[in-house]
Amino acid sequence: MSAATVPPYRLVLLRHGESEWNAKNLFTGWVDVGLSGKGEAEARRGGELLAQRGILPDVVHTSLLRRAIRTAEIALDACDRAWIPVHRSWRLNERHYGALQGKDKKQTREEFGDEQFMIWRRSYDTPPPPLPDDSEFSQAGDPRYADLPPELLPRTECLADVVRRALPYWYDAIIPDLRRGLTVLVAAHGNSLRGLVKHLDQISDEDVVGLNIPTGIPLLYELDENMRPIKPGGEYLDPEAAAAAIEAVKSQGR
Amino acid sequence: MSAATVPPYRLVLLRHGESEWNAKNLFTGWVDVGLSGKGEAEARRGGELLAQRGILPDVVHTSLLRRAIRTAEIALDACDRAWIPVHRSWRLNERHYGALQGKDKKQTREEFGDEQFMIWRRSYDTPPPPLPDDSEFSQAGDPRYADLPPELLPRTECLADVVRRALPYWYDAIIPDLRRGLTVLVAAHGNSLRGLVKHLDQISDEDVVGLNIPTGIPLLYELDENMRPIKPGGEYLDPEAAAAAIEAVKSQGR
Repeated sequence: MSAATVPPYRLVLLRHGESEWNAKNLFTGWVDVGLSGKGEAEARRGGELLAQRGILPDVVHTSLLRRAIRTAEIALDACDRAWIPVHRSWRLNERHYGALQGKDKKQTREEFGDEQFMIWRRSYDTPPPPLPDDSEFSQAGDPRYADLPPELLPRTECLADVVRRALPYWYDAIIPDLRRGLTVLVAAHGNSLRGLVKHLDQISDEDVVGLNIPTGIPLLYELDENMRPIKPGGEYLDPEAAAAAIEAVKSQGR
Repeated sequence: MSAATVPPYRLVLLRHGESEWNAKNLFTGWVDVGLSGKGEAEARRGGELLAQRGILPDVVHTSLLRRAIRTAEIALDACDRAWIPVHRSWRLNERHYGALQGKDKKQTREEFGDEQFMIWRRSYDTPPPPLPDDSEFSQAGDPRYADLPPELLPRTECLADVVRRALPYWYDAIIPDLRRGLTVLVAAHGNSLRGLVKHLDQISDEDVVGLNIPTGIPLLYELDENMRPIKPGGEYLDPEAAAAAIEAVKSQGR
């Protein structure tokens, strides 16, 4: 544990590695699928990067979804920090993909057309249609959300919804750990981390559409007294791999 | 989560499966070795027993040692409870084995004789000689104990020492969870669990010598208003396997 309780505060973001459904090209959202073998390897590599740089988390925050939980377990084991305190919250969950959860991405694109598909995937404030509670991909009745009042359990979300429900956790759970001088690891998802980075780097609603966070590469932010990045965009611990992954996503969109 | 905040309270104890050093017949104590493949399978079976009986933990407490942490992770994944809150404490660690840590059990027995060997292994209040801080098997300087004042970091322990340092955690961390109506899983070690069971079942200092807790088989206690077992000794979720394992340990001693 660092004794520093003055800036810079150290925050590490880690997006989970490939899941079983990433590999199958299905919309996942809140469906609780596990990591693929490749995803486990990505998580281990993430932990090794932390160890190599000597950036050792003192506390970890995860979502309630096993692909983020397992990513944290593997990465922390790889840097000999499996013993640190753990906190979990639904507020760090992936974006709820609504009626798209469980659907094949390619089929969805063909069925609804490129424009609608891209709006659902990337628009800041347009959610997909809600997922009915009787869908096999619904989280209604899931014990992990049993304590949530019904108005908090989403049936669909856009990125704006994710930002709204993630920020209270940033302010109330993560910032207090940072202020104590702890190096904080957040192991979460593409869209919950995009929402957090949007806030940190003050990215506009328009520009966040182009923001992609690669899987399995720790993203280090050093934060100032106001909990804003000293270096905008932070620093990927493997910058070349991160740049290549971001470029690959851009190429897909062309 | 159970809504019950009246007895019976439900406590599940789970001793970690075989570690890499169990397999090599070395004294382990606070040395942080991982599970063997067999140990991982034991943990998974433990979680499957919980799922089959519908005894689903709402919260888990572990030691700071990876063999207990990993046992909890695997068992909870197997019963789809990887997402529950996690708490860890050095007070649930295995007994510190002092100067025996890292030594071969058979060689130690031959070197010091059967009587001394059995005193170190099983006497309630005679610890082995302390482990020097400059030993490769020492935990002096280990970051996971950096916040402990030096008088709390053991250099050796007898079972009486383990009971003394584990009971504050029982009273201050575990009982409050039980009183909230939560099903509590404690994933820990042979001797920290023996200490806890000694307290629960009010076993004498003499009789605790004969107490053995099998690895990987969940031990369920239902507790009354005074946090004492309704059924002394609790209930192993696989009673036949537990009886066979306990008998095997007795036979080794003959």
